[in-house]
This record gives sequence, structure tokens and C-alpha cells, in this order.
Amino acid sequence: MPPIVDIHTHVYPPAYMAMLRSRRTVPYVHDPAPSKDGDNTPRLIILASDDDPSIPIDQRGRPVDSSYSDINVKLSFMRRHGINTSVISLANPWLDFLEPADAQPWAERINNDLEATCAQSNTSSSNDSPTKSLYAFGTLPLTAPTPAAIVSEIHRLKTLPHLRGVIMGTSGLGKGLDDPALDPIWSALQETNTLVFLHPHYGLPEEAYGANGAAAISRSGHVMPLALGFPLETTIAVTRMLLAGAFDRFPKLTLLLAHSGGTLPFLAGRIESCIHHERKFVGSDGSVVDGPRRSVWDVLKTNIYLDAVVYGAPALRAAVGASGADRLMFGTDHPFFPPLDETETNPEWPSVTTNYDAIKEAFGDDQTADAVLGGNAVRVLDLK
Amino acid sequence: MPPIVDIHTHVYPPAYMAMLRSRRTVPYVHDPAPSKDGDNTPRLIILASDDDPSIPIDQRGRPVDSSYSDINVKLSFMRRHGINTSVISLANPWLDFLEPADAQPWAERINNDLEATCAQSNTSSSNDSPTKSLYAFGTLPLTAPTPAAIVSEIHRLKTLPHLRGVIMGTSGLGKGLDDPALDPIWSALQETNTLVFLHPHYGLPEEAYGANGAAAISRSGHVMPLALGFPLETTIAVTRMLLAGAFDRFPKLTLLLAHSGGTLPFLAGRIESCIHHERKFVGSDGSVVDGPRRSVWDVLKTNIYLDAVVYGAPALRAAVGASGADRLMFGTDHPFFPPLDETETNPEWPSVTTNYDAIKEAFGDDQTADAVLGGNAVRVLDLK
Repeated sequence: MPPIVDIHTHVYPPAYMAMLRSRRTVPYVHDPAPSKDGDNTPRLIILASDDDPSIPIDQRGRPVDSSYSDINVKLSFMRRHGINTSVISLANPWLDFLEPADAQPWAERINNDLEATCAQSNTSSSNDSPTKSLYAFGTLPLTAPTPAAIVSEIHRLKTLPHLRGVIMGTSGLGKGLDDPALDPIWSALQETNTLVFLHPHYGLPEEAYGANGAAAISRSGHVMPLALGFPLETTIAVTRMLLAGAFDRFPKLTLLLAHSGGTLPFLAGRIESCIHHERKFVGSDGSVVDGPRRSVWDVLKTNIYLDAVVYGAPALRAAVGASGADRLMFGTDHPFFPPLDETETNPEWPSVTTNYDAIKEAFGDDQTADAVLGGNAVRVLDLK
Repeated sequence: MPPIVDIHTHVYPPAYMAMLRSRRTVPYVHDPAPSKDGDNTPRLIILASDDDPSIPIDQRGRPVDSSYSDINVKLSFMRRHGINTSVISLANPWLDFLEPADAQPWAERINNDLEATCAQSNTSSSNDSPTKSLYAFGTLPLTAPTPAAIVSEIHRLKTLPHLRGVIMGTSGLGKGLDDPALDPIWSALQETNTLVFLHPHYGLPEEAYGANGAAAISRSGHVMPLALGFPLETTIAVTRMLLAGAFDRFPKLTLLLAHSGGTLPFLAGRIESCIHHERKFVGSDGSVVDGPRRSVWDVLKTNIYLDAVVYGAPALRAAVGASGADRLMFGTDHPFFPPLDETETNPEWPSVTTNYDAIKEAFGDDQTADAVLGGNAVRVLDLK
């Protein structure tokens, strides 16, 4: 039986937590005064919508317990859910907010930390599965003063034995992923065969939620920003890359899209149809240009990998239909979406079992299920 | 063989066109000066993004030829594509922009026009198929001064023999579809068993498209507003209804969602998971309330019908997986997405054949394909 591999699982290394603690604007970590029952779990405020002055500061954002920074908690979570190998990645918002001078040193420090964590875990564990227990996606110093610093870190990551790609948000260098200034970055990623795990963070502005949208959002907490804002952000970002010809210029660039591509497998046909019915495309320099040469379907089957963090069989089937059974990979989004009821006697997290159940419902117990649960990740990420 | 029924096909009756011609703000129709080759096809400007002062007014928006208002062009399009029956509906933005005093008279006038068009076509045609050729979704006077006027039109529509429901946008009474003031409307729609064809129009604001989003939009014309903005608008609108408990209060309300639900079948699992992981819901009066009682999956299988206007087999399969093979119905979106090359020798529209091909790819030639192509519409809409 092939191993079960979790390719969507986040960490905030202790040094990253300390940096967030020193900040007072989003993103930041706040240590509340102990409550009546002595609870003083730190709060992480990462969404602008969380930083609402009408909410007492001790209640803003979400609790961040040791599961976010203690790798032993991650390993325990893996054992509890039958996961053999995890490819850990820094959680959003990564280093997107750093001053230019801080970007490269922090990226190096965090990537070295990730490498050390994986190496130590794999040495110390009595791991008798065919694969080691931890690998990592690194982070890039995207706010560095020059692209050269980013390209340099892309090359350096290839020298770290447990690093298997990079995680990145949708803002790129601050102007979106269709920014021509990203071309040296895409080029280096393609040349080094480095997989980009594209992950949302910014969501959608309140105005996007329609008339009285802000009130609607506030009535259901994180539901709309996380359930709709995140996947729609991913969909928009990849579509912008496609429309700007990024996949034409870098035909071997590979992306792993969070949350099964946001909604890309579902909207691919409509995007393709709208491209074919558009009279005029304009390049970033203002000249009239051709539309993208490669079809959405071709890009989905050639450049795109999808995680299986989508909580439903119909979407999993659409993901496989769009990209192929060899391109979908299990994930958990740990440590996000923990059980609400902490006294819950069932030790398994519903957010994880929902995805396991959806894979079983969509693919039964056949080869596709094994591929999605781990076989694809072992092959694509060269896990030993 | 069951008939082929197009449930997503729009008209602008001549009187509606005359009203749009008299306007100078979106939505409006502009008659350009004849070009060198004598073309002076009117231009329809319906999206705010079309009304760009940097675009010469004669080139803004899209050409609206007779296919938008001459029912004979529609009937010819139907014959050309093997469509036996069409359920025509007023195209966006319907009557959403009317002054309160104008709403009810215009709704009545347009609904009576639709009824007359269907009745005349069905009488005059030598139609030997088992169903008549034209039915219609009516329009509601949503800006009327009182809900009573809207409720009254809902009841009156049941007396018009060819009317089979209403088409509606996502703004409701101006505050979105989770507005409690809509309850009398939902109640009347449920009580009269009137299907609501929910259709996007407003898209997403430029800010939703990420950093430098406005520039990205302008480089690819209508692609992002139509390919992403429209489906995401629909998804947001229905999710707001769900979160506000509209389907709990009106468990027999039925909606037909344009473009296969936007992205709802794909995101259903994530929406459901986020609801289950949310600590606190607040009612429209500010009190703490329970989250929605009914699951997204239950609503998709009970209250929701989906059109098959999604241009891809993976999405069609997801739609059927989420809602059921008995709830998906073929559509064309005619007269939108005409062939770009008007001299094209192939008389079929690629926007239509893409959807036919996707249905064949997704469901083969089996019962499901027949149901999607027409059987479901005949049953659900009681077409004779």
C-alpha cells in the first residue's frame, strides 16, 4: 500500500511567531490576558477583516496553539490520521509584508529552519515506512530589492535536501502574478524544475460580496472569506497568469494549486469559451496582442497540479476530469480547521475525515484513490 | 427521442430596447454613426466596465443586432441548432434600474409581451414536436414602492399560460438576496411554486481582481468580468441566501442557477466545512443565532436546479454529482457569445456546440444526456 502524503500542511516556525508578536498591524500575534479558566492562547490576526476595532483585541483573529509551531504536535496529528509523510510549508502570509532589507535574511533563516526540522525528524523517528516523514516547501523573499535575490534563493533551495518547491501567494512582487517583472522568477523556477505551491491569503475585498456585503460577511464570521474569498482569489490569480501568456512563455513552469485550484477545474470551460469570444487582447505595454496561445485545458493537464483539499466528491471528480488522476494530491490544511469542540472524544479531525471520505466516495478503493492519497506526491515531489 | 429544450436564452423585447435607447447611463443602447462599410448596429452598454470614457462611444459595449429583439431570429437559431423549445427570458439587467413608479407598469408590459410572443409563435409555427416552441420566464418589478406590487405580479404571472417562472438578478431589493425584506417575495414564490432563474449581472468590482486588477481586466476585454465575475457573483449570492437561512425558512423555494451555479457545485464542500468550523453566527438583528440548519448538499438536491451552460464535461459531472442528474438543464445563453467571425461558413455557433459536446462527453448517449438536453426541463417546467 502506498504511503499517505499530506502536501498541504502549514507551520509557523518559532522565529516566525516571534516576529509576528513584535508587530501591531496585520499580520500580527497578540497574547491575551489569561481568561477566567486561565486560557491565554495567543491570537493570530492574519485577515484584514479579523482586525475589526469593534472586536475586543483579546478575541480578534483565531487562537494559535502549539500546533502552529511545535513540530511534535504536527507529527502526532500525522500519526493520529494515518499520514506517513507531510510536506510542510510556511502558512500565509509568508514574507509578503516584510521590508525589502529584511526579506532575504528571513527567507534564508526560515528555509534553513524548515530543512533542519525535516532532517532532525527524519533521523530521530523510528520511521519504518518507505518514505521519510517530513519534507518542505520553502518561502521566497519576494519583497527583496532585486529579483536577483529571489532567483538566488530559488537556486539555493535546490541544495537543501528536504526542500521540494516553494509556497507563494497571489500578489507576486506586489502587482499580481501577471506582472512581467516576474519573468526572471518564473524562468528560474522553470529552469530549476521547482514546483510552486500557489496559496491564497488576500481573499476578496468586502465590495466583492455584493450589496450590503460587509454586513453579510460579519454575520457569518470567517465563512465567506475562507469558503469563497480564498478559492476565488486563487482562480483569479491563475487566470491572470494564463491571460498574460505566462504559460506560453514558461511552458514547463509547474504550479500546485491550493484547494483544488479554487474553482479553476469548474470554470475552465467558461474561461476558454470567453477567451475564444474576445475580440481584442492588449499587452502589458499597451500594444494589441494575440490571446493566450495555450488552452486552459492544456495548461491544466501540463502545468497544474491540484491538492484534494476540497471537501466534496463532485469537486474531486471535476479536478481529476480537468487535470488528470495523476495530478491530484491529498492534503489537510493542518493546523487550520481544528475541531470546534475541544473536548470532542473522537480523536480525528472532521476537516480531515471529510477529505478522506470524499476521496473514497469519488474514487472508491481503486488505483486513483491510492494515487491521490500519496502515490502522485511521491512521484511528483520525488519523496524517498 | 425527447425534445431539446433551451432554458437559458435571452430577449430584449422591442419596447425594452426603446427604453434603453432613451437612457445615457448604464444600461443604455447607443446608435453609432454608420462606419465605412455602412454598419451602424446599435451598441449595448450593460457593464460598468464597458462604459469607459477612454473608449470611443461608437465602440463601447457590444453590438446588438436583431437577434436580441426579433423573435424570428431566435426561432431560426433554434432550428439551426436542433432546439425544439426555448424558455425565453429578459436579459440582464432586467428592470433593476427603474424608478419605483415605473417598475410595475414595465414588468406587466414586458410579461404580457413575452406571453404574446410565445402564444403567437406556438400558434403560427408548423410545429410537429410534442412540445410548443416557446415558453418564458417573466420579470419582477423589484424596485416597486411596496413588496405587495411584486407579490401581485408573481400571482398574475400564474395566469399567463406560457410563463414558467421569473428571472432575477442578485441584488434583490437592492441589498442582496439575504435581505429579510425579501421574505414576502420568497414566500409568494414558494406558495405559487414559481421557479426563480437566478442570473448574474453585476459581476465583481475591479478591486476583487487583486493587485493591479483594473489593468489586468482592461487587457483582456470581457474575459474576466464574464468568465469569472459572473459565476462568482452567482456563487456569492446563493451562499448569502444559505447563510441567512433563506432555505430554512422557505424549504420549497426553487432556484435555477445560471452557468451551472457559478461555482457552487465545486465549492459546496468547502462552504459546508467552513460553516461547521464557524464559532458564531449573528442574525440580521444583531443577535447570536445558529448557523443554517440545512446543509449545502441538501439545498443543492432539493431547492436548486442548474443550467448546463458551463462549456466543459468536468463541471457538468460536478453539477450532476452535487444536484443530481434530474436537475441539470441544457441552455445556450443566446444571443450572447455569437461567433466572432461573421463570415464563418459553419452555421453552428461554437458557444452552443461546445455545450452539446460537453454533455456528450460527460454523459455519453445515455438517459442522463437526454434528461439534461430536454427531459428535465419538460418535467420541471411542465412544458406541453
